[in-house]
Amino acid sequence: MKFGGTSVADSDRIKNAARRIVAAREAGNRVVAVLSAQGKTTDALVSQANEISERPVTREMDMLLSTGERISCALAAMAIHDLGHEAISLTGSQAGILTDTSHTKARIVDVRADRIAAALDDNKIVLVAGFQGVSTDSKDVTTLGRGGSDTTAVAVAAALKADVCEIYTDVDGVFNADPRIVPNARMLPVVSFEEVLEMSASGAGVLQLRSIEYARNHGVRIHCRSSFHDRTGTMVVSQEETMEQPLVTAVTHATNEARVTVRGVPDRPGVAGELFTKLADANINVDMIIQNESMGMDHPAEMTFTVPKDDLAVALDTLHAMGEFDDVDSDPSMGKVSVIGAGMRSHPGVAAKVFTVLGQQGINLEMISTSPIKISCVIDGERVGDAVKALHDAFELGVAEEQATGDFRPVAP
Amino acid sequence: MKFGGTSVADSDRIKNAARRIVAAREAGNRVVAVLSAQGKTTDALVSQANEISERPVTREMDMLLSTGERISCALAAMAIHDLGHEAISLTGSQAGILTDTSHTKARIVDVRADRIAAALDDNKIVLVAGFQGVSTDSKDVTTLGRGGSDTTAVAVAAALKADVCEIYTDVDGVFNADPRIVPNARMLPVVSFEEVLEMSASGAGVLQLRSIEYARNHGVRIHCRSSFHDRTGTMVVSQEETMEQPLVTAVTHATNEARVTVRGVPDRPGVAGELFTKLADANINVDMIIQNESMGMDHPAEMTFTVPKDDLAVALDTLHAMGEFDDVDSDPSMGKVSVIGAGMRSHPGVAAKVFTVLGQQGINLEMISTSPIKISCVIDGERVGDAVKALHDAFELGVAEEQATGDFRPVAP
Repeated sequence: MKFGGTSVADSDRIKNAARRIVAAREAGNRVVAVLSAQGKTTDALVSQANEISERPVTREMDMLLSTGERISCALAAMAIHDLGHEAISLTGSQAGILTDTSHTKARIVDVRADRIAAALDDNKIVLVAGFQGVSTDSKDVTTLGRGGSDTTAVAVAAALKADVCEIYTDVDGVFNADPRIVPNARMLPVVSFEEVLEMSASGAGVLQLRSIEYARNHGVRIHCRSSFHDRTGTMVVSQEETMEQPLVTAVTHATNEARVTVRGVPDRPGVAGELFTKLADANINVDMIIQNESMGMDHPAEMTFTVPKDDLAVALDTLHAMGEFDDVDSDPSMGKVSVIGAGMRSHPGVAAKVFTVLGQQGINLEMISTSPIKISCVIDGERVGDAVKALHDAFELGVAEEQATGDFRPVAP
Repeated sequence: MKFGGTSVADSDRIKNAARRIVAAREAGNRVVAVLSAQGKTTDALVSQANEISERPVTREMDMLLSTGERISCALAAMAIHDLGHEAISLTGSQAGILTDTSHTKARIVDVRADRIAAALDDNKIVLVAGFQGVSTDSKDVTTLGRGGSDTTAVAVAAALKADVCEIYTDVDGVFNADPRIVPNARMLPVVSFEEVLEMSASGAGVLQLRSIEYARNHGVRIHCRSSFHDRTGTMVVSQEETMEQPLVTAVTHATNEARVTVRGVPDRPGVAGELFTKLADANINVDMIIQNESMGMDHPAEMTFTVPKDDLAVALDTLHAMGEFDDVDSDPSMGKVSVIGAGMRSHPGVAAKVFTVLGQQGINLEMISTSPIKISCVIDGERVGDAVKALHDAFELGVAEEQATGDFRPVAP
């Protein structure tokens, strides 16, 4: 069971999480709970560090930030004791979460869950501080970066061969579109790792990409559910476990994308590699890339790609510093809409339908990228909402249609 | 170097502590600094725990409270890096502070300072989280109880055979009386372990009893000084190192003492042992004890002792529950004044002078207890201030007399 920052934000919520943990124990399960830092604790620690230093040493950032999850775990253990159960809190290090030495963005290299297993054998509920580990060589405290507690939960679940990794959050589950944009968006009872990976990568925020990858690679079933009520949420399972493969599962979107077009790319091997290496060195996450080959002197080679809007200034600086291009053009107000579904593997008509629907809305497609189960279109940022609604309707993903057609996907066994 | 909670209370003070640490390093020293939690951090964590549970599990209290010192150390390490020096923060566990398993009041059983030593050899400044360790058998985080950071500092100094353990605090050093009561109280440039132990045990609050005991047992020189200026404070050294042994070094006091008198103690062996065992089981710290043997039926055996005023109610409950005594009488408003000096070992006239001075003030002595270097008198709590002033004057301990007579004790070599 993993509880995020909002689920442990104050004493009452910690007691509430403790009650859910105890209920799971009393239902006959052996329970490990991974907790995040309370609410805004991490932000407060970060601002304290920034008061001290403009560029805090990363090793010390990790020592600092790792305290938040320990506080949550210690408090939850106290609450569980008061409910009549034995509980023990463990730091990432004590829980055996071994990582590399990349401070503030460490990757888990192994989970030695002996101590967790021993405590479970001892009939204890185990609380593990999320987001943190210990580096294998230097024995330093490390943190896992954004979404780290989800990854901790999945890694511990994998190491213990847990029946399920329940991720408690402030939403009911994974929806087939953002309910703030599409009022009749539907919660998905089941979704495959592949689909949810594409969804996370294309803008859906519920589950962290890294934790889903880890879960897929280690076959950990995830149950994404609300910490505020008992209803079942979304099961994330392997493709084989999903009973049906609907044509389209979800429509996701992202705003705050910027387009960059580089004209006059020199016609020699390795230029593109050099360009994207320099952007990567500047820590810029390039998303979609389109390259037009040179068609002669009148049509020099051209390359277009998208970057997060916040990184646009640095990206342009990097490109100008290279000084190898005729012209660099950009548009900071782009958006992206994606249609995802495992079933489209065998149904080539989906892309055509997407383009038609967007065309009917008068939405211009600036760039297109596809995977076997996804079609993404870069469009004007201001039309993103319209695009999501139109596609959600066109593929009949809303609650009403589902009820009308009975097209409800059963929970996997 | 040890910095207490007020010396690291906010970002500016942490930067200030960092500057002092760096100055010591740049003066050619190898530096280890032990830090407490920032200002009221520990209190805030304790109240959070009390919000969750009326009686928080002690193991989890330790997990919770140990985070405060880690935060201080991580922030100080960042500040030191910005001053151009390498620094590394270590938890109690990483620093090799091994303790028993008495959570919230653990005792240090060993200090395996290999990692500290390696970092020093690596030209790093080492920051150690005070107040905490790791239990030898269960590998759990433990805390050392009140004054724990002082003890950490002394223990690390002992393990490293440090030249000196500097304890930075918000006062200038150890005074020969409380300056709030005696305006011409004098800071002591040198004081022996034995004297300062008696001083701490009899009410002086600057240095923690446990840390002084540890320092004496391991021969660690302590320099108690201000974190707000550079002036030399008080050196606490072994008796052999003090150049002179003045008759009287200091006058200390305590208020909030309560007297308990038990009448009609049954005349059989072991009764006193039983009584004080029951009080110890109730966690009551008995200070002074006087026993009058039975003088026949008209004068049954009587026992009088003092306890902290806050513990009086529990002490009386405990005694009544035993049901073995004719009468239990108490007075909650007692005080204690003590005169301490290594020189009184060879000068038997001190006690007589103390009694005379207090008699001249019309102060009644309810109980008296002595050690080779201390005379303590239990008196009316309201007369404590008068007693301290009169004794400080009578033994000529004030600043004016010192300057007039040139009786200034040199700093030990």
